[in-house]
Amino acid sequence: MKKIDVQKPEGKLGVLIVGVGGAVASTFVVGTLATRKGLTTPIGSITQLSTIKLEDGGEATAPKIKDVLPIAKLDDIVFGGWDIFEENVYEGATHAKVLEQKDLEGVKDELKAIKPMKAAFINDYVTRLHGTWTKVAPTKWDLMLQIKEDIATFKKANNCSRIVVIWSASTEVYVPMTETHMSLASLQKAMKENSPEIAPSMLYAYAAIDSGVPFINGAPALTVDMPAMWDLAEQNQVPVCGKDYKTGQTLLKTVLSPMLHTRMLGLRGWFSTNILGNRDGEVLDDPASFKTKEVSKLSVLDTILKPSEYPELYGNIYHKVRINYYPPRGDNKEGWDNLDIVGWMGYPMQIKVDFLCRDSILAAPLLLDLVLLADLSKRCGFSGIQHWLSFYFKSPMHELDKQPVHDIFAQNVMLRNKMREIIGVDYRSNID
Amino acid sequence: MKKIDVQKPEGKLGVLIVGVGGAVASTFVVGTLATRKGLTTPIGSITQLSTIKLEDGGEATAPKIKDVLPIAKLDDIVFGGWDIFEENVYEGATHAKVLEQKDLEGVKDELKAIKPMKAAFINDYVTRLHGTWTKVAPTKWDLMLQIKEDIATFKKANNCSRIVVIWSASTEVYVPMTETHMSLASLQKAMKENSPEIAPSMLYAYAAIDSGVPFINGAPALTVDMPAMWDLAEQNQVPVCGKDYKTGQTLLKTVLSPMLHTRMLGLRGWFSTNILGNRDGEVLDDPASFKTKEVSKLSVLDTILKPSEYPELYGNIYHKVRINYYPPRGDNKEGWDNLDIVGWMGYPMQIKVDFLCRDSILAAPLLLDLVLLADLSKRCGFSGIQHWLSFYFKSPMHELDKQPVHDIFAQNVMLRNKMREIIGVDYRSNID
Amino acid sequence: MKKIDVQKPEGKLGVLIVGVGGAVASTFVVGTLATRKGLTTPIGSITQLSTIKLEDGGEATAPKIKDVLPIAKLDDIVFGGWDIFEENVYEGATHAKVLEQKDLEGVKDELKAIKPMKAAFINDYVTRLHGTWTKVAPTKWDLMLQIKEDIATFKKANNCSRIVVIWSASTEVYVPMTETHMSLASLQKAMKENSPEIAPSMLYAYAAIDSGVPFINGAPALTVDMPAMWDLAEQNQVPVCGKDYKTGQTLLKTVLSPMLHTRMLGLRGWFSTNILGNRDGEVLDDPASFKTKEVSKLSVLDTILKPSEYPELYGNIYHKVRINYYPPRGDNKEGWDNLDIVGWMGYPMQIKVDFLCRDSILAAPLLLDLVLLADLSKRCGFSGIQHWLSFYFKSPMHELDKQPVHDIFAQNVMLRNKMREIIGVDYRSNID
Amino acid sequence: MKKIDVQKPEGKLGVLIVGVGGAVASTFVVGTLATRKGLTTPIGSITQLSTIKLEDGGEATAPKIKDVLPIAKLDDIVFGGWDIFEENVYEGATHAKVLEQKDLEGVKDELKAIKPMKAAFINDYVTRLHGTWTKVAPTKWDLMLQIKEDIATFKKANNCSRIVVIWSASTEVYVPMTETHMSLASLQKAMKENSPEIAPSMLYAYAAIDSGVPFINGAPALTVDMPAMWDLAEQNQVPVCGKDYKTGQTLLKTVLSPMLHTRMLGLRGWFSTNILGNRDGEVLDDPASFKTKEVSKLSVLDTILKPSEYPELYGNIYHKVRINYYPPRGDNKEGWDNLDIVGWMGYPMQIKVDFLCRDSILAAPLLLDLVLLADLSKRCGFSGIQHWLSFYFKSPMHELDKQPVHDIFAQNVMLRNKMREIIGVDYRSNID
Repeated sequence: MKKIDVQKPEGKLGVLIVGVGGAVASTFVVGTLATRKGLTTPIGSITQLSTIKLEDGGEATAPKIKDVLPIAKLDDIVFGGWDIFEENVYEGATHAKVLEQKDLEGVKDELKAIKPMKAAFINDYVTRLHGTWTKVAPTKWDLMLQIKEDIATFKKANNCSRIVVIWSASTEVYVPMTETHMSLASLQKAMKENSPEIAPSMLYAYAAIDSGVPFINGAPALTVDMPAMWDLAEQNQVPVCGKDYKTGQTLLKTVLSPMLHTRMLGLRGWFSTNILGNRDGEVLDDPASFKTKEVSKLSVLDTILKPSEYPELYGNIYHKVRINYYPPRGDNKEGWDNLDIVGWMGYPMQIKVDFLCRDSILAAPLLLDLVLLADLSKRCGFSGIQHWLSFYFKSPMHELDKQPVHDIFAQNVMLRNKMREIIGVDYRSNID
Repeated sequence: MKKIDVQKPEGKLGVLIVGVGGAVASTFVVGTLATRKGLTTPIGSITQLSTIKLEDGGEATAPKIKDVLPIAKLDDIVFGGWDIFEENVYEGATHAKVLEQKDLEGVKDELKAIKPMKAAFINDYVTRLHGTWTKVAPTKWDLMLQIKEDIATFKKANNCSRIVVIWSASTEVYVPMTETHMSLASLQKAMKENSPEIAPSMLYAYAAIDSGVPFINGAPALTVDMPAMWDLAEQNQVPVCGKDYKTGQTLLKTVLSPMLHTRMLGLRGWFSTNILGNRDGEVLDDPASFKTKEVSKLSVLDTILKPSEYPELYGNIYHKVRINYYPPRGDNKEGWDNLDIVGWMGYPMQIKVDFLCRDSILAAPLLLDLVLLADLSKRCGFSGIQHWLSFYFKSPMHELDKQPVHDIFAQNVMLRNKMREIIGVDYRSNID
Repeated sequence: MKKIDVQKPEGKLGVLIVGVGGAVASTFVVGTLATRKGLTTPIGSITQLSTIKLEDGGEATAPKIKDVLPIAKLDDIVFGGWDIFEENVYEGATHAKVLEQKDLEGVKDELKAIKPMKAAFINDYVTRLHGTWTKVAPTKWDLMLQIKEDIATFKKANNCSRIVVIWSASTEVYVPMTETHMSLASLQKAMKENSPEIAPSMLYAYAAIDSGVPFINGAPALTVDMPAMWDLAEQNQVPVCGKDYKTGQTLLKTVLSPMLHTRMLGLRGWFSTNILGNRDGEVLDDPASFKTKEVSKLSVLDTILKPSEYPELYGNIYHKVRINYYPPRGDNKEGWDNLDIVGWMGYPMQIKVDFLCRDSILAAPLLLDLVLLADLSKRCGFSGIQHWLSFYFKSPMHELDKQPVHDIFAQNVMLRNKMREIIGVDYRSNID
Repeated sequence: MKKIDVQKPEGKLGVLIVGVGGAVASTFVVGTLATRKGLTTPIGSITQLSTIKLEDGGEATAPKIKDVLPIAKLDDIVFGGWDIFEENVYEGATHAKVLEQKDLEGVKDELKAIKPMKAAFINDYVTRLHGTWTKVAPTKWDLMLQIKEDIATFKKANNCSRIVVIWSASTEVYVPMTETHMSLASLQKAMKENSPEIAPSMLYAYAAIDSGVPFINGAPALTVDMPAMWDLAEQNQVPVCGKDYKTGQTLLKTVLSPMLHTRMLGLRGWFSTNILGNRDGEVLDDPASFKTKEVSKLSVLDTILKPSEYPELYGNIYHKVRINYYPPRGDNKEGWDNLDIVGWMGYPMQIKVDFLCRDSILAAPLLLDLVLLADLSKRCGFSGIQHWLSFYFKSPMHELDKQPVHDIFAQNVMLRNKMREIIGVDYRSNID
């Protein structure tokens, strides 16, 4: 094993969030600030809570990850970002109604101080929202340049040694991958020509990477998931990862389908429906935005179940995913799944799962882990797609000729073995 | 890696089932016979359907397990067993109502030919059933000797080269482990003195092991799970395994709790209730039998979640399991689970799972795999507790100073790595 | 109370079903024939199984409805009908897979003898189906005339004294009510001019009514629900009723919403989703057909809850209904409902209902009751909309300036009080 | 119709609650006080929110019940009561955790002023609770006399013109009805002799009735449900009612079983399980207390479905009710029901209902209605069992030779027709 030479996490780490005033982002910011004040526990965060088994010649130990992996300290984080509304993060969190008011009070001043920069927003890509705090520029290329400037300004103003950019804004309409996204040259040309194939999220990704800053894509859009961006990332020695935080229904799907596969139980149908009332639900009520999400959600089963290898078990699966905007529930999403499974001699059985979850509560710890691990990747000298972070995503990025790993337990092993490699311990566990 | 010298599976394999006329056993027998006639697919059986990744220096391959692991052929199996009712297996399967009549017809003659031997039954240990086809003997020791004779007679009569005994009868009342079960001497003494601490299942286990025959315990009772039996197994070079087939609710529990642990989500409560109307449900309606089952079902969470390591997440779990006899459902069990989980900043969420399953359909393929793998273990020269078969059990046997592995994905890795070892390929996968 | 002069049910009653080879119709026919042979019980049929409280001066009695209400005997029914496929009803029932084969055998010969007449089918109105057994005619008016001839021919050939026509075919695409449907003259003109505002179901309705034959609409389409048809019905002294059999989810909705109203519990949202894999599901996967169904399903809550009277409880309900074609389930529909309700001081609660139902099994007894009660209505001299049969419909027909009654318990009282009136007993029960 | 001569509701109405500091009682008190301050809406209260259809010769009207029925004004209510803990109602409500703290603040002072009188408590009857604020007396008779004195003292101190006593304390252990409870003489004798057949709740009932005060029993215990008490009530011209508030699962049961009956759908099994974590759940974890509750819950189905009349549909129902103490949920009860129903030709279907309810939130409005209607009954000159209030109870009291009405819609008609009678309008609606 080649030793990885990790740069120490010295100085401030600027965390710039696209959609910083939204439900997910504000929940992440509140919880992180409250954690560092000792007011709460960052439940759901692997980096903050979990242990890791290590065994180096001698005896096995299981220290906390945060004590052995050289990630940034929460105290060193400085939050900032962009939003299409001018509200500060305190106002954003209040409107999002994810957290109870009493849970905001302890960090009220810090939240009020986080004021969004103007967003690069184009209504055609998120038709249900109407931004009022947005940049103006003649071309998309110019918008991108403004974002680069924002990053540089923030870094200097806040005396940061490193920056990470994370996308936590709404799902854009479906933009399929075309020739435009294949090379850096064609991508740049399209940006300058205001091509419809350039969605705003791509501008943030380009700006970040071109600034040498890691970029994390929490939504299902193309954004950074294209050869042109991967080339740019390699050129700039920048790690990127995505896409679409693995929460709720897909989380369960990547848990239950491995069970079926491991036990060689057949599957005839999987019906998934969601009701949710937050801005995400509103945006996904637009069929074009839903298309983006649907593509992200559907691929999961095939790669886990391998129908081509097991045609008698998985050769004829009817898989349907529905998302329904349902205002009475607010941010409290509910996912209802029905699985029609098949056992011994072809006898049918059913599993139904009702998940009364909270979108932002499930997502927030993923953001915390991802900004810390993306920053760590950069300091490790990693660049391009970070496959080891697949654990966090519904639709892990992968080279065009490869298959992603969706099984959450397999992803977990990948994540932890890479952590061990960074820590410098030559032990690969297969049971984490 | 030391090469394992595996004896070839030559000649007939006698599979003796305790409770051969019951729902689970008859479903297993029907499906196995129908499979070897090409009438059905043994869905749920790893040994028959699954592939295994192998990589030996060169390229990776993924052959079917049955093509590379030296297990017995289905054609070589001869079925027999004991039951407390005189019915042959065709009658038993008909009464069990698990399978539709049309699915029995193809193997009707073979089923009718399987007639149970008289059972060693004592009503005090299964109070809800009243056996009419039972052995009589002055002491439990004598009953055991009769079972040994049954095994020998069957082996000879059917010209078998090897025998496996598998327990698939009802759950006995709770018999806690005491000094009696600690040594072979005290166990033998208790058998001779008709001690209440000797349940009938122990007689089968003792008889099998003492005949050099592998024993598999599919129920939650003590049976073979005690130092005295382990000593006997080592002395006789016999592999043993158990206990309690992992089906239904516990199967889901060992899938969902790893998800919580992997994602560092907290757990406050887990309520599990079952309704089932078969003989198993009737037996478990007796609190003493239920006690046996409950002990088997409750330990799962602790070993997966590790509350001592994560007191803030798992230090205060309220875990309750209920089983309800509910005749309208017959063998079609329904398990309803509610999980109260906790996320970021302590916010509560809920998961509810409704599993409309079929007890015998889920169990049958486990029996097939277990008899084949127990026989393989014997031919590999393995003896004592077979930890690598933990995958199949609700409550995997383990030495008194050890912890079992409950996480199904970890169990799967253990199972497959041992298979690779037997095949003789030095590759350990951690992503199966 | 004016005494109703009821004509006796003498002679044969011809029951002509539109879609006679389909799942619902064939299930109805099989069960009715099997009932009259004593092979089964017509569970779900009020007319065949229920009792009715009567009190006339003296003591209260509760005889079986069929013993006191002058409905036709099952033995006097002759089945016939139209279908877009040439299959006889035995073949239709076999393909529908609603009933197990063994349940068809007892009436196999009778079923084979029921051969459909060619259907008046136009693909534009049910785009997902492709009929192969259909009438050809220059105009819709001519098609209608052919149906009239079919009715007359059938009546004579089978020596029937009376005929009833019932629609049990697929849901047509949405055809809104316009001026065309307001008067008989404009309706006739449109039929002659092949207007797209004339759906095939209207041709059956017109033909039946114009032949003096009661017409029942089991689907949600306009069909007979328009002033022009009501006029025709009055002119011909013919009773009509509809529309859309009340089964599954709507049945539950008309039960649970009265509970909320009766207890003055508030409602914030009701989300209903269905998965079903039969021909009905396939047809409703076409948004235009679904539109017809949706309109039928949505009106229920408003009339039961009366938001204008109780704005603080019901003034802001978010009601959504989804139907999903899901082939693995066949005719076994599953409806999942979530209600967000509100109690004391505004505290939220939730009710979730999962209904594993069978569409045709729930509908079949309604068809039996409806043909018997429509025939009875005719013999009572009733004409036009039969409000007292609202009990059986998702979307009870009503004059344009009236409100329908949706509450199933209120509908039940209406049904039974009318029965008492026909029986001639002057007692109105309010607790049935 | 004989006109009822109703005494006007002049002066203060003292409402004395047994268990005034508990979850249900404090929720009732908070909401009532907040309502009269205009801070909230008393959702769930028929008397406060519902309208009633009236038709007297002329046109139909639908005024608010509270505007036409001569019930007491909320402003005239004075709260008091007994409890086994010394906490005032503000403290009680805070500990109960049913209501959020912010909902208590508006009536904090009023709540603090309500201090419980010492309870007549005997640990043998509620074994899981350990009261610290209890009366001491040589015999049960003496305890009863102390309660009478409490009532008189409270009435005078608060200048009340009338008093109502309502039981809202924990479920006592099962005390079956025996000869002791048949006559006033034997009851009095048993009280004086400290017979175990006298539970504390009987002392409150006796004291109230003997003071001429209406008594309402909100728990399932015997209490006032016996001939001796009915005699006492008649002698004192006092109305009584009970028992066991109809909330949660039983509410749904009395809604869904009428649906089955109305539609002539068969029932094979009904399994009901509850998880709840409040004091009620803790008390019902004692099998003796649960027995009391179980008896109350089980009778519902039989009287609604009438198995003797419909043996083929309801002759063989397996009905099971389970209550599980489950602390993670607090007062937020969850009831899960499974119904195995039967349709046309015997085909099985299933309905599952998951009710995420709040015990105290559902009960509170019932208490409000009951105290107002019991007081009204008294002023109407009614005495003995008030059958018309059956609507509010799981197990409506009835004479020994009669059957209760359980169907909630039938109960609703009874309730409203009696209201009309009191209002003096000779119109009986059967569709409310």
